Amino acid sequence: MAPDPMNRDVARVILTSRPKGRLHRRHFAVDHAPMPKVGDGDVLVRNIYSSVEPYLRILLERDTGHSKRFPIGDVIPARVVGEVVESRHPDHDVGDFVLGMLNWESFSLVKGGSGLRPVDASLAPLSYYLGVLGTTGLTAYIGMLDYGAPVADETVYVSAAAGAVGHLAGQLAKMRGARVIGSTGSDDKVAFLRDLGFDGAFNYKTAPSIADALAETCPDGIDLDFENVGGANLEAVLDRINEGARIVLCGLVSQYGESRPHGVRNLEQLQFNRARMVGFSVRDHMERLPPYVAEMSGWLREGRIRYHENIVSGLEHAPDALIDLFAGRNIGKQILQIGEDPARA
Amino acid sequence: MAPDPMNRDVARVILTSRPKGRLHRRHFAVDHAPMPKVGDGDVLVRNIYSSVEPYLRILLERDTGHSKRFPIGDVIPARVVGEVVESRHPDHDVGDFVLGMLNWESFSLVKGGSGLRPVDASLAPLSYYLGVLGTTGLTAYIGMLDYGAPVADETVYVSAAAGAVGHLAGQLAKMRGARVIGSTGSDDKVAFLRDLGFDGAFNYKTAPSIADALAETCPDGIDLDFENVGGANLEAVLDRINEGARIVLCGLVSQYGESRPHGVRNLEQLQFNRARMVGFSVRDHMERLPPYVAEMSGWLREGRIRYHENIVSGLEHAPDALIDLFAGRNIGKQILQIGEDPARA
Repeated sequence: MAPDPMNRDVARVILTSRPKGRLHRRHFAVDHAPMPKVGDGDVLVRNIYSSVEPYLRILLERDTGHSKRFPIGDVIPARVVGEVVESRHPDHDVGDFVLGMLNWESFSLVKGGSGLRPVDASLAPLSYYLGVLGTTGLTAYIGMLDYGAPVADETVYVSAAAGAVGHLAGQLAKMRGARVIGSTGSDDKVAFLRDLGFDGAFNYKTAPSIADALAETCPDGIDLDFENVGGANLEAVLDRINEGARIVLCGLVSQYGESRPHGVRNLEQLQFNRARMVGFSVRDHMERLPPYVAEMSGWLREGRIRYHENIVSGLEHAPDALIDLFAGRNIGKQILQIGEDPARA
Repeated sequence: MAPDPMNRDVARVILTSRPKGRLHRRHFAVDHAPMPKVGDGDVLVRNIYSSVEPYLRILLERDTGHSKRFPIGDVIPARVVGEVVESRHPDHDVGDFVLGMLNWESFSLVKGGSGLRPVDASLAPLSYYLGVLGTTGLTAYIGMLDYGAPVADETVYVSAAAGAVGHLAGQLAKMRGARVIGSTGSDDKVAFLRDLGFDGAFNYKTAPSIADALAETCPDGIDLDFENVGGANLEAVLDRINEGARIVLCGLVSQYGESRPHGVRNLEQLQFNRARMVGFSVRDHMERLPPYVAEMSGWLREGRIRYHENIVSGLEHAPDALIDLFAGRNIGKQILQIGEDPARA
């Protein structure tokens, strides 16, 4: 039986001040608002899982090419999977599971039901639609296979390789026959990558230097860099690229929120090696999601791709989940659990 | 009548010490060597013009992706146009004009005639084969039209726009209907660019900042950056690129010979704007040279493309010609005249 939303208020995570540099819990607060009225055409969603993603960190502070930064005093927008608990919209029934760009809050009112997409709880755990079967997975797929396009025996280097996108991207490159090396920030995560089948992995925090670690793990140079970090990592990569190398900019997490970003001093290596550095956005490829979900579901069932997620429970821990993401405390996809998951329980 | 080489020695420009940072005359010396003996299959060339190019500066100091740095005590290799004065090779007759990778010296012995290519003095001035009708022009053509691929009404920004490649690349983008802005280092060169038909031009040395100058001259952002400078120029460009922008790395002359290169801190703009930065080498496209020469000769004759060269006379001034190139004292292609040009005289 669905809970009666009318008896409850809505818990929400609010941005209370603008972070500069390091992110703290004090930049956020949890407040409580009255349960909204469901008007004609609206849908009320009880939120279950939310995706905790690096781009949130950027938008706390500043605009990007395609998004405005979050206003102070507003609830934090995020990708959410939830359950319809009240509906005055013909496309959505109570009990349906849906995915949408909602908020870090216990219930979201979706005006006109706009942007909600049904998800199938029988096919995969609900949280997977925020990760391997959502834009996170599609980012790894499009970024690695379309933009990077590794071929057999090439050396592919993935930074932040134990992260949500990285651990999938590396496995996809392995499927293409490439030799895949990953870097990450703990020995546990190095073991995780080796277990996934990475040909090499190193802990950049304990390596003598990234340059030394790359020299050892990529003796034939780097043909494809799936770049999740930027800064000093990217600089070390540029000094080891082969002719015709591709650098796919998936994220530059080391630079987000840095008031003094690390300048990359050796871009001439792109010129000398006829190499290319490419930015992309999964938003340009959303029409690929349905066939991708079908293909990836199969690989997951067959065990050809293994997916890992780290679930942090409780809306009040949302800021910690984001802080931990940048501290590298998670392995795999960082998920915030906001409410009870009837499909997993 | 050809001079009798047996009566003369060979003047040569030698690298005497390895420059670090700023280039000085003292890194070079002119010496004299005996005239070499022409063996069976060899060709002796009297050198007339040499190309003075930025990459020489790099190879004085260090290796690049595809070339080893020049050894101390050796004559400086360079692209040269000259006249065959003695030949024991069936393909080359005395009086022929040829182009090859020879040296900064008055006469070059070419063993087995290898790598010499005939040039037609009746079609264009001999020096043009080192510039607009050679790899310099082909670099502008391939870099701008193939890698940059501007379309009508796009904003194209060319740095070092009054240089050998820049002034051609800008005119090629104009032919495609783009709005073309150039930056350069003197008011004379700004006037030169305006006269060539650039839609805007600024002197980066007197502008309040490159960012301000770009904001003023590129109000709709930058769709294509033909990058000849790097460093701070590239950083200012990245802050103004549009979605889907292309940055073609033709050269990063501000960085060559810099012991402390300027780090580029905003590569995230590539990611945010789904943009790309591409290195290329004209060496991968040399099969395009003959059709290019035919096409460009026509454009030059029709006045659709205007070409400018700056000729520095005298082998002993070769180091100055290179130093001046980096000081930006030339307009257009920097050419060293080594010997008399019978076709121009």
